[in-house]
Amino acid sequence: MSRFSFNQITAKHWELTDLVKGLVEADVDKVALWREPVQEYGLERSAALVRDAGLSVTTLCRSGFFQLDGWFDDNRRAIDEAAALGTSVLVLVSGGLPEGSKDIAGAREHVADAIAQLVPHAAAAGVTLAIEPLHPMYAADRCVINTWDQAIAIAEQHPAGQVGVTVDTYHLWWDDTVLPKIEQAGERIAIYQLADWITPLPAGVLTGRGLPGDGCIDMRAFHVAVERAGYTGPIEVEVMNEELWQRPGREILADTIAGYQSI
Amino acid sequence: MSRFSFNQITAKHWELTDLVKGLVEADVDKVALWREPVQEYGLERSAALVRDAGLSVTTLCRSGFFQLDGWFDDNRRAIDEAAALGTSVLVLVSGGLPEGSKDIAGAREHVADAIAQLVPHAAAAGVTLAIEPLHPMYAADRCVINTWDQAIAIAEQHPAGQVGVTVDTYHLWWDDTVLPKIEQAGERIAIYQLADWITPLPAGVLTGRGLPGDGCIDMRAFHVAVERAGYTGPIEVEVMNEELWQRPGREILADTIAGYQSI
Repeated sequence: MSRFSFNQITAKHWELTDLVKGLVEADVDKVALWREPVQEYGLERSAALVRDAGLSVTTLCRSGFFQLDGWFDDNRRAIDEAAALGTSVLVLVSGGLPEGSKDIAGAREHVADAIAQLVPHAAAAGVTLAIEPLHPMYAADRCVINTWDQAIAIAEQHPAGQVGVTVDTYHLWWDDTVLPKIEQAGERIAIYQLADWITPLPAGVLTGRGLPGDGCIDMRAFHVAVERAGYTGPIEVEVMNEELWQRPGREILADTIAGYQSI
Repeated sequence: MSRFSFNQITAKHWELTDLVKGLVEADVDKVALWREPVQEYGLERSAALVRDAGLSVTTLCRSGFFQLDGWFDDNRRAIDEAAALGTSVLVLVSGGLPEGSKDIAGAREHVADAIAQLVPHAAAAGVTLAIEPLHPMYAADRCVINTWDQAIAIAEQHPAGQVGVTVDTYHLWWDDTVLPKIEQAGERIAIYQLADWITPLPAGVLTGRGLPGDGCIDMRAFHVAVERAGYTGPIEVEVMNEELWQRPGREILADTIAGYQSI
């Protein structure tokens, strides 16, 4: 359990103060936070809340969305928020196609350019930009970076501490080439996240993930690959599931821990 | 319009006899048929119906589903059906994971083995097995072959006339590496199918495709790649869309032709 981190989105409707209390009671000392609930509670108050509870923040989720106007300022703010929360990892969901566009190659080039523009600020703040390749089903509307190869190619244009890659089992499991590449990724792995693949997918395909062990992903194979890469950092469970979200936070946390331990 | 073929699933609820009549009236001389409606109307009757109407059958959709018991016999029957309908192309949807399995690598090996076992019968019948890489969102429950590379690697274990690949824009558009590979595929391209990507995806993600031009796929880029490969065969429009299916067959056909011509 020493590497387990609970990602806040897994219990989306659990108030931040209750979440912190619940984690402490369950002897969990790591949490991944999301920008919206942190902003709602207040950045400085959130930072003090988790610090005073002895929690470390493994990542801040998420910025990116480089197809939107204002991406530069918003991502700089996100970097500052990550630093204020005491985490060194900001997860990037790179955004989909601009409205009406069919130019996915152009959108991908723009992501690489945008990240290059953000690196100086991130480096100064001590924050690693963790590019997350999202499943290809999100290519149009959420993230044009859809494979390990695309993410690593952008990351490698920068020093390893400044730009890394998010390994999320849910997004990468289908790729028959990915495991040996993860093994070779070394310090490029900025964070490791778990969610399982269950079917049928719900409308919108955002909120149908399973707790680790509930789906068809060979989690052990991912674990071996990440270990062989030399990654010793936290392991976040990040599950978005409409049905799970309806349950009390404490139950969700208990089942998340059980799922994590089962694999 | 000389290369246009109307895939029967695009007007799922249009009776076969009405479909044939509608195609003739619209001066369309190519059709792709599906096994279920053909079996319902009768194989020999269907073959006579399309032949007498002067239609050529571009593909039979679809067999495969190699994770199921009985796959060998069922696929041999499908090969015979394709031959009886006078088409030389049988589209293969290779099937998902066996019930309860997490071994996607094993499932992929089984697909390659299964196709090898079917090749003699297909070759004798003059039918090309057209492996269709399906979008990675179908990896668990419909098709473990999810990339161009996987499909071509299996196809290349056999002569080009015996095993080929289905190029379907809907399944491949997200892959940043696919266009130059298609250009190099030459006679491995067994059939070229069009459908567009629209969001949000519906529950189950099967019936949310768009007519060509309605979504975000750069169809022109695909067209150029397929032309450079030297492919001169039919171009099928194959759209599964619940809303479209509710409309009269003649309207669907007219809009499909309009979409095809628009790109």
